[in-house]
Amino acid sequence: MVERTVTSRFVYTGQIVKLRIDIVETANRRRATREVVEHADCIAVVPVDEQGNILLVKQYRYAIGKELLEIPAGGIDIGEDAEAAVRREMGEETGFSPKTVKKMGGFYSSPGFCTEYMHLFLATDLMSNRLEAEDTEGITVVRVKPGNIEGLISSGAICDAKSVAGLCMYLRTL
Amino acid sequence: MVERTVTSRFVYTGQIVKLRIDIVETANRRRATREVVEHADCIAVVPVDEQGNILLVKQYRYAIGKELLEIPAGGIDIGEDAEAAVRREMGEETGFSPKTVKKMGGFYSSPGFCTEYMHLFLATDLMSNRLEAEDTEGITVVRVKPGNIEGLISSGAICDAKSVAGLCMYLRTL
Repeated sequence: MVERTVTSRFVYTGQIVKLRIDIVETANRRRATREVVEHADCIAVVPVDEQGNILLVKQYRYAIGKELLEIPAGGIDIGEDAEAAVRREMGEETGFSPKTVKKMGGFYSSPGFCTEYMHLFLATDLMSNRLEAEDTEGITVVRVKPGNIEGLISSGAICDAKSVAGLCMYLRTL
Repeated sequence: MVERTVTSRFVYTGQIVKLRIDIVETANRRRATREVVEHADCIAVVPVDEQGNILLVKQYRYAIGKELLEIPAGGIDIGEDAEAAVRREMGEETGFSPKTVKKMGGFYSSPGFCTEYMHLFLATDLMSNRLEAEDTEGITVVRVKPGNIEGLISSGAICDAKSVAGLCMYLRTL
């Protein structure tokens, strides 16, 4: 089933994505072109406070021209492990630092064309750590009761794949 | 909150993705670069047979170099509506045509950098329509009882965001 790479060239190398065009030999020995968006692995986190509320972030997403309600997520810096990235992103995006961070799983974002894998975490024992950080500009934190999450997904208020997947994976554990 | 586009240029225009580099003015009037992967809207479908089994497809994904177990999904052709794309993709990937197709919602794949929106459908009343279609090469259909889906997600056997999100959205309706 594996496709063998014949040639591979980068057509763009940016800060967030690299775009690679590969010629491959398919399983049935035909030549085909594969457009591959290289994106570093990321973290996404379901933060839960002492009352059981889930902290979501509302932020403008330029690529789609809309403000979305999502679980916090972000990149893993060079030399940083995934758990440290969770703590840093939580601080930057929500102003809270979790004492407890637990791996819940993970998933590929768009395996048809993109390399990105998202590690999913649960963050609890949140401590306020509000800073006037640059990264929090334009991000609003919204606390939601777990019983209201399904309605927000059904209505389309929560409408990105990682948030739907991550929140469903968390709700199953309750 | 909105970011205003200052300049916009395409650095690559391919069959599957286009890559656009925009300079924007952020909400706080700073200049920033936004790398945007343009990808057409897609469909994903949870196909359910008369016994209640869910049909998944196992296929090799070159971008990540692995075979994944996913819900069927694919692009919407020019001039085609989303429901017609569901029927076509079902035929190509599973060899079954659904008599009933119902919208279940949808989600953005990676709104941080990609425009792609996935329309999610439920397909029932499946009729065998097995063809020796090119598109089915290398795709294996796997029937899974709904009660086994959660275990496959927990174990990581189902590990892409659209499949986790789509299957969770379907399981909630049972």
